[in-house]
Amino acid sequence: MKRKGLSEREIIAVLRTHFESGPRLPLGFDDDVAIYPFGKTQHVVVKTDMLVGTTDVPAGMTFGQAARKAVVATVSDFAAKGIQPRALMIALGMPPPVLLKTAKEIARGLETSAREYGCRIIGGDTSETKDLIIDCIGIGLSASGNIIPRNGAKPGDVVAVTGDFGKTTAGLKILLSKSKMSRRKYSRLVNAVLHPTAKLRDGLRLAKTGSVHSSIDSSDGLAWSLSEIARLSRANIVVERVPIAKDVAEFAKEYRLNAEKLALYGGEEYELVLTVPRNRFESAKRRVPSLRKIGRVEEGVGRVVLVKNNHLIPVHPQGYQHFV
Amino acid sequence: MKRKGLSEREIIAVLRTHFESGPRLPLGFDDDVAIYPFGKTQHVVVKTDMLVGTTDVPAGMTFGQAARKAVVATVSDFAAKGIQPRALMIALGMPPPVLLKTAKEIARGLETSAREYGCRIIGGDTSETKDLIIDCIGIGLSASGNIIPRNGAKPGDVVAVTGDFGKTTAGLKILLSKSKMSRRKYSRLVNAVLHPTAKLRDGLRLAKTGSVHSSIDSSDGLAWSLSEIARLSRANIVVERVPIAKDVAEFAKEYRLNAEKLALYGGEEYELVLTVPRNRFESAKRRVPSLRKIGRVEEGVGRVVLVKNNHLIPVHPQGYQHFV
Repeated sequence: MKRKGLSEREIIAVLRTHFESGPRLPLGFDDDVAIYPFGKTQHVVVKTDMLVGTTDVPAGMTFGQAARKAVVATVSDFAAKGIQPRALMIALGMPPPVLLKTAKEIARGLETSAREYGCRIIGGDTSETKDLIIDCIGIGLSASGNIIPRNGAKPGDVVAVTGDFGKTTAGLKILLSKSKMSRRKYSRLVNAVLHPTAKLRDGLRLAKTGSVHSSIDSSDGLAWSLSEIARLSRANIVVERVPIAKDVAEFAKEYRLNAEKLALYGGEEYELVLTVPRNRFESAKRRVPSLRKIGRVEEGVGRVVLVKNNHLIPVHPQGYQHFV
Repeated sequence: MKRKGLSEREIIAVLRTHFESGPRLPLGFDDDVAIYPFGKTQHVVVKTDMLVGTTDVPAGMTFGQAARKAVVATVSDFAAKGIQPRALMIALGMPPPVLLKTAKEIARGLETSAREYGCRIIGGDTSETKDLIIDCIGIGLSASGNIIPRNGAKPGDVVAVTGDFGKTTAGLKILLSKSKMSRRKYSRLVNAVLHPTAKLRDGLRLAKTGSVHSSIDSSDGLAWSLSEIARLSRANIVVERVPIAKDVAEFAKEYRLNAEKLALYGGEEYELVLTVPRNRFESAKRRVPSLRKIGRVEEGVGRVVLVKNNHLIPVHPQGYQHFV
């Protein structure tokens, strides 16, 4: 049966065809943030990320947590680019009736998380919608406009991440299982879903090293992020070790799940995925101790493979995509 | 019966209470745009305006026209502040399946209208939603940060507008009446709804005069805009003449409607409503010939009244509000 609708990537391709006619911008439409030069010495860095109740807010997540998640998602994109977001705008859509308690929870969730990341909420817009919509717009500044792109990976680079993976995918399974899986035992996994954090400090420190060739956040899953770096950099990535969180390994064992898949094909995990030249990795790690090597960049056409028992297993650009 | 939910204004009040804790920003949360100072000599001007299919896209409006309307709504707020928007970001939410035709129409509508107002679309986000959502984020720059506020009206000022009113309210009635009212005869009214325009050139010229004390756009209706200027400036506004569009007067006569009410209590009309000192009005009008005087500012506590046959009739802060 032929699919009737476009996938998210196809929709973005249509939009890009129409929007990319002007002079080249410092970062392409494919990147985490957009940059616009103002004058000769300043660049405004902007990101919009729309949180939608139906798809992004699992059962068990409060309004305050959803508000926090919207902020984290936007801040995480700044983290990947090593840019401090300064101001946030919030476009809020809510289905009526909106209770005072709900409005207060959302306001508090936005304000607390904005402050946590050194941002100020400067304005916004409210609308009546069918879904809960929290569109969080982040604004930052870059003097040079030289922002770490997604497409800068070079053969010989080390592929590194800022933390372990699989926690949100496992946590989500626990939340959706209602009471079948133990929330208490795996509270850290559940917490990873309900109270995510953006690796802003790590991202800012990494950018300061000047060593990072390419970087992306992992909000669409590790496999997706690796595939994006490989595809856009026109290089292959060889994954030598899938960074599975300890709790995830234990959880996978108990419920007979594939821990590697949980770590690779998850999403809404706000770690950073990046590449640095081999000889700069150790000094970068001294600045950001959470950094761990998971693979290497090789010449190629944009594929990602996993080395396992001397076999190469393809890693697919799979992850959360809307509209499919 | 007690209302269960909050009104839009009540929701905004809750948000403001939480967000306004930091140092004072150049414009308050009440204004058309938000401003954030970057360094000592630059201010980024930002606006987000969320178009929602269910409430903002009447039957008969195409996807391309809806996309245009989203851009116009954001540009109109910049027009009211006399700031050229430079870059736009689009957060797009669409219910699946999304047809290629639809994606193309939206992309073309966004791109054409952005270009019309001298803006470049630099990026965005796409999500799956139940409503059509087009959140248009505008970004501009102001060296001084001295942007015409809503709250600067002074007793003695002339109240002026950039055009006549009532067209969109009348046009919407025609669209909703299906075939009962004549679309052909009143095509200009229908066109005002389907193909709105932002008064960006007028707004930029007015700002250059340096005479404008206060300004707002009329997207929530003329009565609402006047009430906002009066309330925030803590001054009264006396309306001497309701600026009724000629076509609207004719339409009202044919269908026995109150033309004055159509002009006052409409919405989604993107004219500018402003106040200038009496002795600067004529020179401002030479720069912006469409400018017309409709009243005056007097000492007071924020009320708006209409003078009619030597009687004072209160004008209520009524207009389109979500959630009520």
